[in-house]
Amino acid sequence: MLNLASGTDPAWVHQARLKIDQVLLDHTHCEKKAAGAAVKLLFSYPHHRFMQEPLARLAREELEHFEMMLTVLDDRGIRYESLAPSAYGSLLHAEVRRDEPNRALDILIVAAIIEARSCERLKLLSEAVSDPELSKLLSELLPCEARHHRLYFELASKLAGEPTARVRLKELAQKEAVILSKPSADVRLHS
Amino acid sequence: MLNLASGTDPAWVHQARLKIDQVLLDHTHCEKKAAGAAVKLLFSYPHHRFMQEPLARLAREELEHFEMMLTVLDDRGIRYESLAPSAYGSLLHAEVRRDEPNRALDILIVAAIIEARSCERLKLLSEAVSDPELSKLLSELLPCEARHHRLYFELASKLAGEPTARVRLKELAQKEAVILSKPSADVRLHS
Repeated sequence: MLNLASGTDPAWVHQARLKIDQVLLDHTHCEKKAAGAAVKLLFSYPHHRFMQEPLARLAREELEHFEMMLTVLDDRGIRYESLAPSAYGSLLHAEVRRDEPNRALDILIVAAIIEARSCERLKLLSEAVSDPELSKLLSELLPCEARHHRLYFELASKLAGEPTARVRLKELAQKEAVILSKPSADVRLHS
Repeated sequence: MLNLASGTDPAWVHQARLKIDQVLLDHTHCEKKAAGAAVKLLFSYPHHRFMQEPLARLAREELEHFEMMLTVLDDRGIRYESLAPSAYGSLLHAEVRRDEPNRALDILIVAAIIEARSCERLKLLSEAVSDPELSKLLSELLPCEARHHRLYFELASKLAGEPTARVRLKELAQKEAVILSKPSADVRLHS
């Protein structure tokens, strides 16, 4: 359903549990970045009328999650502050082709993959954490991340046709699996 | 209440009525730009914890208004497309000082002024248009624009202290009045 080319290594779950505060802080930034990415698409592609409302609604939802994550941080005494991201995002975005409409297609597919990976990992995390309240809260995010994955894939399909979008999703999902397989110094939601 | 240094020239209202479709399209882009500006502040100032939720909520509201304006355009058969902005935004942002915390203060004050001017002009427009439905819709935006003006001023006051924020608001409001007094080739919400 999530179209990922690999499942997460159980070692990641172990690490993320040990550094749960850091992973929650990272996820707070991820929600903000997800909102920023959707808003950026509104600026880049005003001529793609079909993208406007879905992306605006998605950005609003990401901002709501950002606000919710700030509450989680506050409740757990975690200071909201800058955090160096993993290389994941920049490596994945480096796969985006420069020429249009390939660029737009790739940006949408990359966003779809990031949402899918968030969904997969938040599920693993929600099952692994000992705090039942935190577990419940993380699991409540899952349907949204899955829905955002589908939405981005739908937008990509409207843009380039479903077969083309599906081929590119498969290609980029394989790249993503390779990126994630590389060792990372710090534990992040995508590391 | 809106802390503006000038009232809008009645000639603007006349022009805006004549080119109402263009002004509505411009305002749609303005709502998107307002959301983008608030999200950008979230990225620039994560260490100012007090700004996060208010700006995220404001960005969500701007996105809702953007979606609403798209419906207005659709209902009136206006194509949503790129539109060259007036020089207003770039001239006003050119007044932002480069050094922190002055930069943050000025960005917040500039945002407060833009919201105030939007409020003043949307009120004039809502009174001038002949379509009662459009008039009602525009007038419904006014309390939001006024609230956003107050919010940005409150954030500026929290950042720099209320007296400093007030002095800078007065200075930049005067600059804004000068910018608006210059003739503009095209009619925009801020021209």
